[in-house]
Amino acid sequence: MSSTGEKQSSPPAAAEPVSDPADLIRGHVRRTFGPRVLGPPPGFVTGLRLDFNEKLFKRNYHEPVLMGTMAGSSAKGALAEFQQDGTRAHGHAESRQVANSSHARTGLQPVSLADYRAMAQDVVAMAVNDLVAQGAEPLFVQHHLSGALLTETEIVDVTAGLADACEMAGCALLGGERGAADHPSGSFDLVASAVGVCELNRAVDGSRAEADDVVLGLAGTGIHARSFELVLRIVREAGLQVEHPFADLQDPRPLGQVLLTPTHNYGGAIASLLRNYKVKQVITGMAHVAGGGLTGSLSRILGATLNAKLDLTRWTRPPVFQFLQSRGGLSEEDVFANFNMGIGFLLTVKPHFADAIARHLKRKGESVSAIGKLVNGTGRALLK
Amino acid sequence: MSSTGEKQSSPPAAAEPVSDPADLIRGHVRRTFGPRVLGPPPGFVTGLRLDFNEKLFKRNYHEPVLMGTMAGSSAKGALAEFQQDGTRAHGHAESRQVANSSHARTGLQPVSLADYRAMAQDVVAMAVNDLVAQGAEPLFVQHHLSGALLTETEIVDVTAGLADACEMAGCALLGGERGAADHPSGSFDLVASAVGVCELNRAVDGSRAEADDVVLGLAGTGIHARSFELVLRIVREAGLQVEHPFADLQDPRPLGQVLLTPTHNYGGAIASLLRNYKVKQVITGMAHVAGGGLTGSLSRILGATLNAKLDLTRWTRPPVFQFLQSRGGLSEEDVFANFNMGIGFLLTVKPHFADAIARHLKRKGESVSAIGKLVNGTGRALLK
Repeated sequence: MSSTGEKQSSPPAAAEPVSDPADLIRGHVRRTFGPRVLGPPPGFVTGLRLDFNEKLFKRNYHEPVLMGTMAGSSAKGALAEFQQDGTRAHGHAESRQVANSSHARTGLQPVSLADYRAMAQDVVAMAVNDLVAQGAEPLFVQHHLSGALLTETEIVDVTAGLADACEMAGCALLGGERGAADHPSGSFDLVASAVGVCELNRAVDGSRAEADDVVLGLAGTGIHARSFELVLRIVREAGLQVEHPFADLQDPRPLGQVLLTPTHNYGGAIASLLRNYKVKQVITGMAHVAGGGLTGSLSRILGATLNAKLDLTRWTRPPVFQFLQSRGGLSEEDVFANFNMGIGFLLTVKPHFADAIARHLKRKGESVSAIGKLVNGTGRALLK
Repeated sequence: MSSTGEKQSSPPAAAEPVSDPADLIRGHVRRTFGPRVLGPPPGFVTGLRLDFNEKLFKRNYHEPVLMGTMAGSSAKGALAEFQQDGTRAHGHAESRQVANSSHARTGLQPVSLADYRAMAQDVVAMAVNDLVAQGAEPLFVQHHLSGALLTETEIVDVTAGLADACEMAGCALLGGERGAADHPSGSFDLVASAVGVCELNRAVDGSRAEADDVVLGLAGTGIHARSFELVLRIVREAGLQVEHPFADLQDPRPLGQVLLTPTHNYGGAIASLLRNYKVKQVITGMAHVAGGGLTGSLSRILGATLNAKLDLTRWTRPPVFQFLQSRGGLSEEDVFANFNMGIGFLLTVKPHFADAIARHLKRKGESVSAIGKLVNGTGRALLK
């Protein structure tokens, strides 16, 4: 914190000032702020300037359309939260409330406090990925947090994770709201809202996809969030010990940690791509692979008149999907219709531009594969 | 549903078609749509056009600033939800989770399904009121709903309540997201995000308030949501039976229903006022009376150099506040610092315009009183 270049001698440890959590939170929020943001964080009046006169946007908008998405911590939150407090599994058996609880079923043990940061990264990534899949540039994220049991340190962790994800997506974290401490369950429930802007004639809705378009797949980081209910069911029904590693996961971490790996955030890479290409011409469809798995998400692009032929040799499926398939007794069709199978984001693009687009995304840090192509058909994804 | 003016004879009850909940939901969402909205409800790509060429806005923006707010159902949700299912109070005593639960303490009994519509109106009103208090015109609302235990009919009710509140605020309901059914508590948790736009030089942050400004108070509809933790504590500690009416409430409804009356939605009236006045000149401060009660909310306008002298004879305090004060053994200062005392929204305005502004708000259906004035001071609200 010294403004000089000289190295300071350390003060005695006992005299070291403890950082105020409010200052830490403000610091995390401020690192997401660009020149468009007005007002003090996390003060009452904070706004984002939509300025068409100055070059505050990396590109200017002539007919701006605002878009918004929301995501919540949901089932994945239940799993992460439970790891904080093993006692929650007990004393609930008679209750209709807890008959629906994943806590009671998974038998997780306490692990690391760092999970709250990862959880927050995950929730924002879900919202931002949905947003950029519509062709929107992320502008800002807000959040709502309920959780009577969180300490100040845990709330700082949540804010840090929100800010991490906003930085990845190139957008601002604009305040938030903490729900009442008297929340019914006292449980962690984080909801994020992402708002973005899109040029009217560039919104990407899949209606421009055509036969011969190339399907590009961007690698994911694991299960991602919206496939999580089936994961919890498999864990419970197969009696899996989530605090243990499993050889066929090919990962030294306990199963629970593998399952909780945050959703990959595609916001920055896709926003950069959208700035560099006239979307209307070369990117014909995009999908965040969430509910519906790889084949369900692809079908949103295909409509009723196209099929996608996917070449399964073109990417490596992470072992966690084979693990869940075998433990859950699922068919090949089932796993593709429920999980992302290693592909967290899909684009369909004109063949002539496929290589250049893949290179652009790789430069932005994505792992990209041409995994198939579109043909005339009836809205089906064909696996071969 | 007939398009003719003729009265139709009723078909036999058994043959009457049951409306598809998805159609009902789409119908509620569509009634909030104006010409700015693009895309199909509640489809994946929905946007709101920010158009500066056409007169889609009631006024045009030269330097638009986007603002956002969020609100959740929180403690009030716990109370409403509990009324659906008296069994939740049992079997939780050993759990840290439920030691924090308001269910276990309030002893509520099941009442009416209509509460979900009211709850949704309430959550949106909280978000919209915060938004217009900053000088923003509401553009759109999104929501995130977790709730494993909701039926389709209850989800239609939630959507209807969201749409009601959006119509009141003159904004669009742009889709939403349903959380996983495997939510940890299975409980109702509704979060709304409101996004609005403000002309850069008209943002209302209270910094323009001056001595002699008039304090206008807009009547509320009861407790409103963010004062609810103290309400739950009083109910519990005084052992109040919330399913019973109380004579000193001067209301025939059971206490629980009185407490759950949705927050009044000031969105439409304030947005109309902002369109009709150059805010910078005549409206010097606004506050949604939420956390901090009447005096705490007022202090956000006063800063460090003004006091507000409030004349308590200028409005009628609803009996519910006296009821809570006496049952909770609270001082006069305590109740004003925790509850809205019947005033849900505050404006400070230039004296010369106070009457005209009050008349404008009354024409929009608000109940308005000049409840005090600003004097030089130290940031305190003086009650007399």
